[in-house]
Amino acid sequence: MHEFTIGDVVREHRRGRGHVTALVDGDRRLTYAELDQRTNRLAHALLDAGAGPGERVLWLGVNSFRIIELLVACAKVGAMLCPANWRQSSDELRFVLDDLRPAVVVWEAGPLDAALEPLREATTGKWVCHNADDGYEDWLSSHPDSDPGCEVSEESPVLVLYTAAFDGRPHGAMLAQRALIAHSMMLGVVRQIEEGFVCLDSGPLFHVGTMMFALATLNFGGTNVVLPTFEPELACRLIERERCQAAMLFPAMIAQLVEANADGRFDLSSLRFAAGDEPWNSMITIDESPWGRSFAGYGQTEVAGMLTYHALGLEGTGTSGRPSLFAQLRIVDPVDGELPDGEVGEIVARGPHVFSGYFNRPELTAAKLRGGWHHTGDLGRREKDGTISFLGPKLRMIKSGGENIYPAEVERALNSHPGVSAAAVIGRPDPEWGQNVVAIVVPAECAEITEAELIEHVRTVVASYKKPKEVILAEEIPRRGFVPDYDELDDRYGGGGYPGA
Amino acid sequence: MHEFTIGDVVREHRRGRGHVTALVDGDRRLTYAELDQRTNRLAHALLDAGAGPGERVLWLGVNSFRIIELLVACAKVGAMLCPANWRQSSDELRFVLDDLRPAVVVWEAGPLDAALEPLREATTGKWVCHNADDGYEDWLSSHPDSDPGCEVSEESPVLVLYTAAFDGRPHGAMLAQRALIAHSMMLGVVRQIEEGFVCLDSGPLFHVGTMMFALATLNFGGTNVVLPTFEPELACRLIERERCQAAMLFPAMIAQLVEANADGRFDLSSLRFAAGDEPWNSMITIDESPWGRSFAGYGQTEVAGMLTYHALGLEGTGTSGRPSLFAQLRIVDPVDGELPDGEVGEIVARGPHVFSGYFNRPELTAAKLRGGWHHTGDLGRREKDGTISFLGPKLRMIKSGGENIYPAEVERALNSHPGVSAAAVIGRPDPEWGQNVVAIVVPAECAEITEAELIEHVRTVVASYKKPKEVILAEEIPRRGFVPDYDELDDRYGGGGYPGA
Repeated sequence: MHEFTIGDVVREHRRGRGHVTALVDGDRRLTYAELDQRTNRLAHALLDAGAGPGERVLWLGVNSFRIIELLVACAKVGAMLCPANWRQSSDELRFVLDDLRPAVVVWEAGPLDAALEPLREATTGKWVCHNADDGYEDWLSSHPDSDPGCEVSEESPVLVLYTAAFDGRPHGAMLAQRALIAHSMMLGVVRQIEEGFVCLDSGPLFHVGTMMFALATLNFGGTNVVLPTFEPELACRLIERERCQAAMLFPAMIAQLVEANADGRFDLSSLRFAAGDEPWNSMITIDESPWGRSFAGYGQTEVAGMLTYHALGLEGTGTSGRPSLFAQLRIVDPVDGELPDGEVGEIVARGPHVFSGYFNRPELTAAKLRGGWHHTGDLGRREKDGTISFLGPKLRMIKSGGENIYPAEVERALNSHPGVSAAAVIGRPDPEWGQNVVAIVVPAECAEITEAELIEHVRTVVASYKKPKEVILAEEIPRRGFVPDYDELDDRYGGGGYPGA
Repeated sequence: MHEFTIGDVVREHRRGRGHVTALVDGDRRLTYAELDQRTNRLAHALLDAGAGPGERVLWLGVNSFRIIELLVACAKVGAMLCPANWRQSSDELRFVLDDLRPAVVVWEAGPLDAALEPLREATTGKWVCHNADDGYEDWLSSHPDSDPGCEVSEESPVLVLYTAAFDGRPHGAMLAQRALIAHSMMLGVVRQIEEGFVCLDSGPLFHVGTMMFALATLNFGGTNVVLPTFEPELACRLIERERCQAAMLFPAMIAQLVEANADGRFDLSSLRFAAGDEPWNSMITIDESPWGRSFAGYGQTEVAGMLTYHALGLEGTGTSGRPSLFAQLRIVDPVDGELPDGEVGEIVARGPHVFSGYFNRPELTAAKLRGGWHHTGDLGRREKDGTISFLGPKLRMIKSGGENIYPAEVERALNSHPGVSAAAVIGRPDPEWGQNVVAIVVPAECAEITEAELIEHVRTVVASYKKPKEVILAEEIPRRGFVPDYDELDDRYGGGGYPGA
């Protein structure tokens, strides 16, 4: 009686918000009543195709409202949806198909055709083309719209997201229904989501950063406006037309929106977002929620999104705020002993929105979840005031002259210099020291900075042994979303030899 | 690994907010670090006294910070705390003691002494006096401050609140740890609770209305300021001194605060509360959260507080908004069939914050929770737009000339007349009609209204058969908190003969 699944969320919205628009995608608009009906049909379709409890459904294509409805349909029958990264190579897609062995693959005809054709023949699942006339819609509408009425546990995984290949191959993190709902509620607290919330799904739904906002919007009975891929003009048009209040926007995307709206022809005032530079601030409404006042925090796919929120530690010295109110967090040594405040160790977590393990990786799962705590693989420190500082992945800790150096600390020191626009730190193998700290720095516009000046600046902010041996001035830092692309930086500038890797 | 208990909440706050004040009560101030330590000691003390998993701890006294710490200690060992209504008669207290068979009774020496003495001798549990020199504090400090480390399920009941005697005797509704946490999160969403929340526990903690805010404050790592009993001047002083942001205030309490602060000597501007009349509005800060903009909703002890929120249905026609985002709600007929929109039936609910049954009432529990849904005993209707109207307890439905009449509808019609300050409706037995509708009305100041005028007004607002046969003009309507005291009204004005009672 206390169970509450994503199927239940939609059933409830059908009754309480049946007329509210749940999904917008191009010309397509679905109310919650329609979403509940369509996901009933899809649920029957999945069961007929063998995609029952524990089975997988794979999505291969760009963003679509169908990712959300397939997720709800999976929730109703106890299956799992995996929206795959469609930007992957044919080899990578083959890996996912072999790994996941999906009962149903919903794919998009178009650019991926050539890559998918050989894969299709090598798999046993049912393939449904979502953008062909005789495809997905026919499949859906040939099934009844009655509730399938399956007993589904809220602890059943419903979403699989493949995460970064920390050991050379990707792993599918499984997130339970309850995990997604708990995370949505916490995000809703910090973002102060209210009735009538409208979110532009402007990032990729195969990434937890966009998915977590799409799911919170669903949970709160709001409207998800799905953008197939990011196009600044279309994004502006949709924000204006749908009165979007939120969107997933990296700094580079904001710059493109500002450029697309340089003449002010789009009214973006419905968008409530963290303050940035002019003219962005004058186009939008500054988000005064805790999330808007102090953006984001520390997170990863394995906790369904955010584990800590800046907004929960505003007065603190830690760089990542405090944990979600649905999570416990500890800093532990290599044998899982809790470390005192101020010491660096691995961040471990437990609670309702921690994941349920990696699909098809029993040994890795057992290792990551040993002792009932999820081992994030990231290093952090609890400051004296109880707030958390995230220091970077264990795998990328630099060891130089026997000392542990955390790139994030050195990067923060560099970024505190007014002449620095962006900075990233890598370790380069060195026969004498093990590794040397190398900083790649993009100077601020019109700033004249020298290598010696920056090294000296870092020395005054953090311990001397952490200062870069070399500073490389560059025109850009390659990025993956909010964070630097360290693999690419290692390739370009000779990084490597990380002792934890 | 996904479990999260109230013990875990406090363990986490000790680490993340160890220096934050958790509880204020008179001169006593406890940080979260101290609360965690003290509740460890108390947990050991409870275990030593036999108050382990499933056992009960009874609180007999006015509000105290010790109610909160005893609740946390119970959470750590799997026991349940019952804060009893200390205003009850000796016979009523004896009923609770006999019913609950507590392993530990924490009582307050003073006005209750005479009533408690004979009860004490008749029970087997350990009695601890919380305000004697050699009592509670000695008991607590004689136990170690190490975490008891008990495995406790989040589904274990931790709070027992006795509810209104709907069948002639009170029943102890058991609320699980998870239920209290889920309700706190939902209340935090609607009230937009942020870091640094300070709540004045100004109502009785044995009532869910005050307890739900105290628990949300605890869950969010805020500060509970405990008022032993309501005293307007002390309340003003505490709001000013502690910068309280919230309080449990009925309209009569607000009037007393306004009177106590008529000369403006207290700064109440930290308090964010729903707008009322001047000068209240100028003393406080109007709460702009959804909760403040549209106060409360429909709730009961058995759902840990609120089941629906006005704030979630602002644009709707229903009088009680929409359900908590952690709940499912249906309107059902007597054989549990779901009714179509617009029809009146019993409100049933399920989800994480629904209670776990009544203590020691297996048959009543089975009946109330039949089919996996909690039967609230209240009548409601889902409007065409999906919002919910609460129409009153099933037991108080009036039947007149074969027609069902819901007092809440008639009261709303009366209250919509400008000459009415307050109204309550009862049914009076009638040999010809079964019952007649009788309205008790307090006229607005300086208003001149007649019985005929009011009856005619109701006739124009609702169906004619619902109009009162008689309107009694009165100087006051006796109340229990926000709602009229219908039992008292029946006694005074000859009500009775309700077919559902």
